[in-house]
Amino acid sequence: MTILEFVNINLKTDFKDDNELPFKLTKKTFKKGDVLTSYGQIERSAYFLISGLIEITVLKDIDEKIIEFFLPGCFFFSYTSFLSQQPSDVQVSALSDCDVEVIDYVELQKAYKTSLVANQIGRLATESIFIISTKREKDFLTKSAQERYDELLSKRPDLIRLVPVNKIAKYLGIHPESLSRLRKNLFS
Amino acid sequence: MTILEFVNINLKTDFKDDNELPFKLTKKTFKKGDVLTSYGQIERSAYFLISGLIEITVLKDIDEKIIEFFLPGCFFFSYTSFLSQQPSDVQVSALSDCDVEVIDYVELQKAYKTSLVANQIGRLATESIFIISTKREKDFLTKSAQERYDELLSKRPDLIRLVPVNKIAKYLGIHPESLSRLRKNLFS
Repeated sequence: MTILEFVNINLKTDFKDDNELPFKLTKKTFKKGDVLTSYGQIERSAYFLISGLIEITVLKDIDEKIIEFFLPGCFFFSYTSFLSQQPSDVQVSALSDCDVEVIDYVELQKAYKTSLVANQIGRLATESIFIISTKREKDFLTKSAQERYDELLSKRPDLIRLVPVNKIAKYLGIHPESLSRLRKNLFS
Repeated sequence: MTILEFVNINLKTDFKDDNELPFKLTKKTFKKGDVLTSYGQIERSAYFLISGLIEITVLKDIDEKIIEFFLPGCFFFSYTSFLSQQPSDVQVSALSDCDVEVIDYVELQKAYKTSLVANQIGRLATESIFIISTKREKDFLTKSAQERYDELLSKRPDLIRLVPVNKIAKYLGIHPESLSRLRKNLFS
């Protein structure tokens, strides 16, 4: 999916090409392992993932924690840094080769001033990232590791298929050995 | 602060009264202890807090965890339930007598279809709730209880002043006795 398709589906518009969108887009590709936004960098881009797999991490001392994975069809970026234009406390990296579309910060802010469609897209994108992020927070507070793994398996099976096991464990906040046990419980 | 003032400040508009806003507002008051949205209820209202103190909680078995407190000057509601119109997994309650303004769900969705201002407000409100919520999640992953308490004290001193100690402890995810220790460390 592209931003054009995302907009047409979500806003029920019928835009024929990118020139009808209220902001300029550029296309970029990243290689597996590339860092799109590093710790301390100010986020200038809102990315939309066309293909590939993205990881967002945060640092505790030298220990890296995984906050979120993104699969194609959604916006992703160092959100707080983008909004505040302060240095990012998260890192955005490509877990596989990725095709993305990019909206520049200044370009987007300009569009927000006058464009209904730009604000509708911005609102929808923020709403959907927010729902994912608060769900994760509530799950950490209320569910066991087993429950969180089971739910990931049923609700986001693509993640389990595409993301290396050690990263799934990090995302769930458990040791890789514990994850192996959870997987055994499930299939025994 | 009222929604009218919030809009004029954030969008640099100059609306003179509520009738110029793109949606209808109603005013309500709640008493200390009132539940605005209960577990399992579908959220039909976007609330703006004029005065008072709000708590949002989630249940783990019979144990209640505090997700967020809201002080005057911001929007609050069972966000995921409001957006999805599915039963709420959180509860919204008044920790003190509260004055609020209310925007009805249907009314807001209607405004979102055509109004630039409604979408700008919706986007800004979502962005600010999102920043608070992801900050809390990142803090849980990367900071000790002491660091989280110190930061609360420096960044949101009003909370420490207004919220009972046992609730601050719940919010930080620690035992009230541990919080007493942190407070002692700080003042020793």
